[in-house]
Amino acid sequence: MRRKILVIHGPNLNLLGLREPEQYGTLTLEEVNRRIESFAREKGVEVEIFQTNHEGEMVERIHGAMGIFDAIVINPAAFTHTSVALRDALLATAIPAVEVHISNIHKREPFRRRSLISDVVVGQVSGFGPDSYILGLMAAILMMERRDEG
Amino acid sequence: MRRKILVIHGPNLNLLGLREPEQYGTLTLEEVNRRIESFAREKGVEVEIFQTNHEGEMVERIHGAMGIFDAIVINPAAFTHTSVALRDALLATAIPAVEVHISNIHKREPFRRRSLISDVVVGQVSGFGPDSYILGLMAAILMMERRDEG
Amino acid sequence: MRRKILVIHGPNLNLLGLREPEQYGTLTLEEVNRRIESFAREKGVEVEIFQTNHEGEMVERIHGAMGIFDAIVINPAAFTHTSVALRDALLATAIPAVEVHISNIHKREPFRRRSLISDVVVGQVSGFGPDSYILGLMAAILMMERRDEG
Amino acid sequence: MRRKILVIHGPNLNLLGLREPEQYGTLTLEEVNRRIESFAREKGVEVEIFQTNHEGEMVERIHGAMGIFDAIVINPAAFTHTSVALRDALLATAIPAVEVHISNIHKREPFRRRSLISDVVVGQVSGFGPDSYILGLMAAILMMERRDEG
Amino acid sequence: MRRKILVIHGPNLNLLGLREPEQYGTLTLEEVNRRIESFAREKGVEVEIFQTNHEGEMVERIHGAMGIFDAIVINPAAFTHTSVALRDALLATAIPAVEVHISNIHKREPFRRRSLISDVVVGQVSGFGPDSYILGLMAAILMMERRDEG
Amino acid sequence: MRRKILVIHGPNLNLLGLREPEQYGTLTLEEVNRRIESFAREKGVEVEIFQTNHEGEMVERIHGAMGIFDAIVINPAAFTHTSVALRDALLATAIPAVEVHISNIHKREPFRRRSLISDVVVGQVSGFGPDSYILGLMAAILMMERRDEG
Amino acid sequence: MRRKILVIHGPNLNLLGLREPEQYGTLTLEEVNRRIESFAREKGVEVEIFQTNHEGEMVERIHGAMGIFDAIVINPAAFTHTSVALRDALLATAIPAVEVHISNIHKREPFRRRSLISDVVVGQVSGFGPDSYILGLMAAILMMERRDEG
Amino acid sequence: MRRKILVIHGPNLNLLGLREPEQYGTLTLEEVNRRIESFAREKGVEVEIFQTNHEGEMVERIHGAMGIFDAIVINPAAFTHTSVALRDALLATAIPAVEVHISNIHKREPFRRRSLISDVVVGQVSGFGPDSYILGLMAAILMMERRDEG
Amino acid sequence: MRRKILVIHGPNLNLLGLREPEQYGTLTLEEVNRRIESFAREKGVEVEIFQTNHEGEMVERIHGAMGIFDAIVINPAAFTHTSVALRDALLATAIPAVEVHISNIHKREPFRRRSLISDVVVGQVSGFGPDSYILGLMAAILMMERRDEG
Amino acid sequence: MRRKILVIHGPNLNLLGLREPEQYGTLTLEEVNRRIESFAREKGVEVEIFQTNHEGEMVERIHGAMGIFDAIVINPAAFTHTSVALRDALLATAIPAVEVHISNIHKREPFRRRSLISDVVVGQVSGFGPDSYILGLMAAILMMERRDEG
Amino acid sequence: MRRKILVIHGPNLNLLGLREPEQYGTLTLEEVNRRIESFAREKGVEVEIFQTNHEGEMVERIHGAMGIFDAIVINPAAFTHTSVALRDALLATAIPAVEVHISNIHKREPFRRRSLISDVVVGQVSGFGPDSYILGLMAAILMMERRDEG
Amino acid sequence: MRRKILVIHGPNLNLLGLREPEQYGTLTLEEVNRRIESFAREKGVEVEIFQTNHEGEMVERIHGAMGIFDAIVINPAAFTHTSVALRDALLATAIPAVEVHISNIHKREPFRRRSLISDVVVGQVSGFGPDSYILGLMAAILMMERRDEG
Repeated sequence: MRRKILVIHGPNLNLLGLREPEQYGTLTLEEVNRRIESFAREKGVEVEIFQTNHEGEMVERIHGAMGIFDAIVINPAAFTHTSVALRDALLATAIPAVEVHISNIHKREPFRRRSLISDVVVGQVSGFGPDSYILGLMAAILMMERRDEG
Repeated sequence: MRRKILVIHGPNLNLLGLREPEQYGTLTLEEVNRRIESFAREKGVEVEIFQTNHEGEMVERIHGAMGIFDAIVINPAAFTHTSVALRDALLATAIPAVEVHISNIHKREPFRRRSLISDVVVGQVSGFGPDSYILGLMAAILMMERRDEG
Repeated sequence: MRRKILVIHGPNLNLLGLREPEQYGTLTLEEVNRRIESFAREKGVEVEIFQTNHEGEMVERIHGAMGIFDAIVINPAAFTHTSVALRDALLATAIPAVEVHISNIHKREPFRRRSLISDVVVGQVSGFGPDSYILGLMAAILMMERRDEG
Repeated sequence: MRRKILVIHGPNLNLLGLREPEQYGTLTLEEVNRRIESFAREKGVEVEIFQTNHEGEMVERIHGAMGIFDAIVINPAAFTHTSVALRDALLATAIPAVEVHISNIHKREPFRRRSLISDVVVGQVSGFGPDSYILGLMAAILMMERRDEG
Repeated sequence: MRRKILVIHGPNLNLLGLREPEQYGTLTLEEVNRRIESFAREKGVEVEIFQTNHEGEMVERIHGAMGIFDAIVINPAAFTHTSVALRDALLATAIPAVEVHISNIHKREPFRRRSLISDVVVGQVSGFGPDSYILGLMAAILMMERRDEG
Repeated sequence: MRRKILVIHGPNLNLLGLREPEQYGTLTLEEVNRRIESFAREKGVEVEIFQTNHEGEMVERIHGAMGIFDAIVINPAAFTHTSVALRDALLATAIPAVEVHISNIHKREPFRRRSLISDVVVGQVSGFGPDSYILGLMAAILMMERRDEG
Repeated sequence: MRRKILVIHGPNLNLLGLREPEQYGTLTLEEVNRRIESFAREKGVEVEIFQTNHEGEMVERIHGAMGIFDAIVINPAAFTHTSVALRDALLATAIPAVEVHISNIHKREPFRRRSLISDVVVGQVSGFGPDSYILGLMAAILMMERRDEG
Repeated sequence: MRRKILVIHGPNLNLLGLREPEQYGTLTLEEVNRRIESFAREKGVEVEIFQTNHEGEMVERIHGAMGIFDAIVINPAAFTHTSVALRDALLATAIPAVEVHISNIHKREPFRRRSLISDVVVGQVSGFGPDSYILGLMAAILMMERRDEG
Repeated sequence: MRRKILVIHGPNLNLLGLREPEQYGTLTLEEVNRRIESFAREKGVEVEIFQTNHEGEMVERIHGAMGIFDAIVINPAAFTHTSVALRDALLATAIPAVEVHISNIHKREPFRRRSLISDVVVGQVSGFGPDSYILGLMAAILMMERRDEG
Repeated sequence: MRRKILVIHGPNLNLLGLREPEQYGTLTLEEVNRRIESFAREKGVEVEIFQTNHEGEMVERIHGAMGIFDAIVINPAAFTHTSVALRDALLATAIPAVEVHISNIHKREPFRRRSLISDVVVGQVSGFGPDSYILGLMAAILMMERRDEG
Repeated sequence: MRRKILVIHGPNLNLLGLREPEQYGTLTLEEVNRRIESFAREKGVEVEIFQTNHEGEMVERIHGAMGIFDAIVINPAAFTHTSVALRDALLATAIPAVEVHISNIHKREPFRRRSLISDVVVGQVSGFGPDSYILGLMAAILMMERRDEG
Repeated sequence: MRRKILVIHGPNLNLLGLREPEQYGTLTLEEVNRRIESFAREKGVEVEIFQTNHEGEMVERIHGAMGIFDAIVINPAAFTHTSVALRDALLATAIPAVEVHISNIHKREPFRRRSLISDVVVGQVSGFGPDSYILGLMAAILMMERRDEG
């Protein structure tokens, strides 16, 4: 049976490509999603992609993933720094998650350095532009393979 | 006329019992709610129970309680530490409120020690598992009795 | 062609006038909005007014303003201090914005002194009661005039 | 066999009712103790009550409770914020304890927000006036019942 | 009788227009003053304008304003962040004051974020270039009108 | 009727004169007490002097002063920096108190700069050697005179 | 030969009595000065009194006191918290100085708790209203007597 | 011409697999290196691998990479948190670098959260066990591809 | 003449062996004392041992040691972190002291890292279980020998 | 045409040589100035020297230097740590400046470590006694030479 | 079979005795080593002694001790406060270690109070001059004996 | 006999001129060294120049300078902020040292503001490009001359 991975995009990412290109590049979310899907196909995993600007929706999407998805690749964007509810949702559902960031959050405003979820996810990928998603997906796949091996 | 108390459960509490049992116990929200209702009946007060994962809904539920409920028993969960809007809603409506927490928040991550509402509620009950709700309800009832006396 | 300005009221402002009059005055939101509209008419600009208690809605309202509004006058209320998503929405859309506060935020709780948007807006007006909106509107108009001149 | 609970009042509480009524109410310690005893009788538990202004006496009273009392309800008053010895006594004897405060410590001076025992007790009740003791007693009783059930 | 408003410019503002144009614009102090006077005439209030590089002179100018001026519009420039004496002068004379800043102080060095007077003035206007003075003046006028109404 | 003033010496002051003369001088506590008594006689007030190394005793001595003494002159020594119980005793009894220190506490270890009672006493005298007591007594006398006048 | 003491009043003290009476009392500076002079006469010392709102003048007045005055009694008011130049002047001239404050600076804004001169003066008197000057003068006199004895 | 990537292992990584398996897994450095080489072969890039326990050697190895390697994948281990010299070497040579960590540094001691190089590398991969190197290598390859495209 | 050493055990140490064995081991205080006495006999020094839960008693025991004991070996337990009075007693009596801790205080709660006496004792021994006392005694003996040599 | 350099001495430097010799040496300001002038003559540059105890005068002296002096060598003394106005004057006039300190400010009180101008001057020389001025002058000369070369 | 203990001296200790005698005494490293060897012989354990000024060498010496030495007595000197690599080496090899310091690090510069290894060693001995090594050795021997007993 | 000065260049300075020219200029280390030597010849002092990327080597080079060099001019580069061992080497050998920095360290990352050696050297020169070495050399020469005079 094929692995299922849920990819979550946080607030304002619907503007990707239109917004601050020196920070986030010129690919639109649509184009990034196509790259994600293509990489997933190539690797033989199934992905579902979800974007929201609402913290409550993100929390409930994670709740709904229990028993259905094997892993989550999440770019919580602004919620990274402000949402304890998101942290609690990840803790509660205990689905292995990979945190990704498009920009290198360590080069930006100090408040972006604090992630409220970084210690409840498996690991973090940050700074590689839209490729952060590809790397995050690959991290999730390797992680599942190691568990099968282990 | 019977007292009316609004009980509010914050984000992720819909997963209660399914989630981190060492932290939150094994009772489901359903079961906790039945205990709350049974205790309320026994004490002769009316309760209405509400759960949400959305900050905006919690704020508006509190707005809507003005003139209808005599007290609020609230477990804001993650919003305890992040929602100034919740604080402002409690300040604005001025309904006497009791803050409850299932786990002892002082035994957990440092950021859980800061409550943005603890100085605008009447008092706080923390650490007694689902019984925190029963104690919170009793606190609200005693509080209303003292006002009648005073 | 007439200038268009979007005026945004943040959470709990729907209770304005009913709530903490020593802090926020006795005018209702309805009455404040009428003053805003009357001042706009007098100055020959068009305004649209929006209130929400939901962070996600505020973010999406700003997204939707791109290409339609020339400026935003925003009182983010509680979100001022907690919403990185709001900051990112303003950064992403790059519509010139004026931040207004009814009360003087520097006379209140320490956590109200930190604004997450003050360095991404053009400027800030704080402490003049409902007149803060009038001054904010005037600031936006002057700002647009200077750009035309410049 | 009946449950035995030790109730401990910390320094200056002998002045209760005479002292800062806006902060602590007008009931004297004598009257509060009578309420505690009456509630205990009603619930079928035995209580012993102890007040001291001496840190060493409080520590030794807790030592002496080992093997005799099933739970402690303690309002350490000023020692809450300054006594590591009290913390160590609670850790050493490992009798389940409930921390209570008459006033809401989160509405007062910043140094009162730090409790040196809050993470070594079962839970905390704060802000309900003398009823905090009644709620603390009830918390201890519920806690013992759950253990019997569990 | 016409309202009288004292406008105070702090240190280094005599160099306005010559100095750091990307920060403060290209209008000279002379030109800004003419705009202030013209706006005052239009609004039917009297203004007196004063610039100083000396903290002691600023303090004494405020002392001398007691009983003569109805309001102060003040841009304390560098003294904003370092002068407790200025704060005390405003507290002592109790003339309603509006604090203005040409640049958006929240976009600059961290020490410029702390204003020693922001909590003793009525309100603050910051970031609108020389128009900050116009807005400050208008704020003072609206403030006086509201008092008359109230 | 003669005024009665209670003079309290805190821990280790029984060693005065024997101990660290470069810090505390060479007068013994006995000699200092004689100076205090002689000054009191000269001014026509009655003094009672008390030294203790026990926080609990100091607290209870203050309790016992209610209704008997008109003022307290207190050098809490080490308890200045560590005793919230002392602070609460002063708050509870509300007897006007003057805080005195033999050495200039601002020239010593940083932790000696924090006094837990300085904001609940009338005023503080620090750094004048044993004369700090004489000045503290005189402060108490002047304070009582002003109240009589006022 | 008679002792000479220089009394220095810092900024805004020229408004004493007119200004914030709940903080500083209702005596004018004129009246306080007369009390100082009368107390000095009574004690057989000569005083010269100086008030300034200018830091530079205060510094230079202290320079000019070298070789002429035996002691300084100084209330630096706002400069207490902001003037390193004042500290350096006291260090440089090495005239023994007594720091006085009319209000209890420990009951006010946090930034008033830091004195830049408290560790370079002999001692500090704070909180006794205008009597702080009388106590400061007496401290200076006792200090000179002890040196003569010693 | 084939891309060349330098892989650097920091101090104590020579003990990998022998050391704290719950933290770092059971693969030896030898085995990890073989995985790295195999992945590189598969992707058609050349890798050179270097381990050192000496900060100076690491600095000089980076100097020596100028003009020879197209990218660096570096796990600085302990030097991450203590070496400004390493940061300066990366800044000076300006070879694009990817920072990798075997364990999730956000789950460990607080001082491990501060990386002195994270804002001078392109991006960071952390927490995926030895797979962090594979992901780091892939990140470097994608990064080079994007530059060719761009 | 034989050297005399005073050994002081702080609060809660009377429970040693009964209390938290993973932290403090299983030897009782009685047994530890016997080891101390046996080691002292072997080394030809006299020891006196004292335990107290009262800060005041500890202070006075140190006062009483002046002129009688050559050195103090002290485990202040909880008072390590909270007692300025203890620090002052050691400073005042100036008897050379060795600070010992049974557990390694650097592995425990952060507030246990601050010792209020560590910079007024000769040295510190921490973390060797009950052997910390033996090492402390030996340190005191070596210290006295070096003084004799020197 | 000869280069012109303005040398500015800050507050209390008029007492140089008379004041704290262990900190500042025994040369008077007069003697230091003669050394400065002699060194300037030797190097063929013109110097003008200015001392003030008034922040406002220092600010205005810098304003007046625009267009006349090629460089400033400034020892702001106490103003180093407290004057944002001085910083703004240097920023506004943009004359290249060298900051000098007679004593090594890093060996003194912590508040002397913060310089409000160090990041707006070209460089800083600190700790070489009166020779700091000579080195500062030489730094200014080298700086001008490099610009001519460049 | 005889126990083997590795004694490590950190940077600059090769200058012992020649360097800052008031801080470190007058014994040379040679002489200290002879004392260590003599004490070891007396106790029947084997010691090997190693000094280095290179962090990398210290790390590798610890690696090389695995399987050969039963315990390490280490004075990391300056590396105590700066070397995470040393900490990791001790964690990785898991050889029981005793940390020793010649001077009392709590009496020195604040940055010397932070030890990066104190929570990964068994215990710490600090302040007894060269005897700290003797006590450290004895601690290691007692520690090994207890393990044999236990 | 000619004075001998040791000039030390810290890590990464071997890349000078090749590296970040906007920060460090375009002169290579070779060229800077020639300037240093030429200035030394002109002033009649002997210099020896040493560059290293290894902390241990720098420490040992300073050890080796005892008795041979009269002064050290040192640019510790990155070690400025991280090496307590370097500080200890300077303290131990007590050779008068001058700290130099090519760039103005106060204009850069916050962690570059902390120098671990600035309070153990005679003085500091910072910000004048390669001329900082020339000024440092001159400072050392003047320092030696003053000692001869003094």
